[in-house]
Amino acid sequence: MVGQVMEPRISIVTIACRDLDRAVAFYEGMGLKRHPGITEGVAFFQMGGVILGLFPRKDAEADSGVAFGPEPSAIYLAYNTRSDAEVDAVLAQAVAAGGRIVKPAQKAFWGGWYGYFADVDGNVWEVAHNPAFPIDAEGRISLPA
Amino acid sequence: MVGQVMEPRISIVTIACRDLDRAVAFYEGMGLKRHPGITEGVAFFQMGGVILGLFPRKDAEADSGVAFGPEPSAIYLAYNTRSDAEVDAVLAQAVAAGGRIVKPAQKAFWGGWYGYFADVDGNVWEVAHNPAFPIDAEGRISLPA
Repeated sequence: MVGQVMEPRISIVTIACRDLDRAVAFYEGMGLKRHPGITEGVAFFQMGGVILGLFPRKDAEADSGVAFGPEPSAIYLAYNTRSDAEVDAVLAQAVAAGGRIVKPAQKAFWGGWYGYFADVDGNVWEVAHNPAFPIDAEGRISLPA
Repeated sequence: MVGQVMEPRISIVTIACRDLDRAVAFYEGMGLKRHPGITEGVAFFQMGGVILGLFPRKDAEADSGVAFGPEPSAIYLAYNTRSDAEVDAVLAQAVAAGGRIVKPAQKAFWGGWYGYFADVDGNVWEVAHNPAFPIDAEGRISLPA
């Protein structure tokens, strides 16, 4: 029998980055606000009810005891938007912030509009407008009922 | 000037997995409930206001046009708990579900109790009780005020 050990949530998403200052500059360039309280060797961003962390790869490896594979990471993130135009804007902003487009915005097989960018470490974000996955006023996304 | 292009949120965290059924079995073994509506070649889990996706690596690579590096992924996830005992329980459940401990539960330099497990693909989760990062009734975590 499967017990309910984990509540259905993810608390922190950490990008083990090659250069903390460079990664911070990129994500601030995306418009995110670094948490001003905990800044010694790490950066945190409050992302709704989840935290995004930037932590130097060498420090994350020392703490966890594992050696991460090279980028792009096989765990990747998606930012879903409320409109097609917002997909285009986020991809353009990623380039302005020092990232690059890895798949230009286009129609998706699942019926929306999407593309991918890579951050300054080469990790990939999908940027997608998927009307089937509603986003509430607080930015929480839901699977179809 | 930095515009507010991205709202501060992450919509979907996707694990590009080696074997979808194996990954689903692991995460169901952790107590998570697979979304019953969209199951063709993908698995989704509603994680509060975020979605966890499991998507075969070859399909994710075909869609994004990038070749991911090997596991463990340099983007890693953390599950924060409400107690030290819950850290121990989640790590034990990870082993029961087919994962392995990569760092046994222990005191953290930042003042909590934590450890790491690897899932069936070798991707790492931190499991942590950090009293400085409060978790509300709905599971949303916050950085200190």
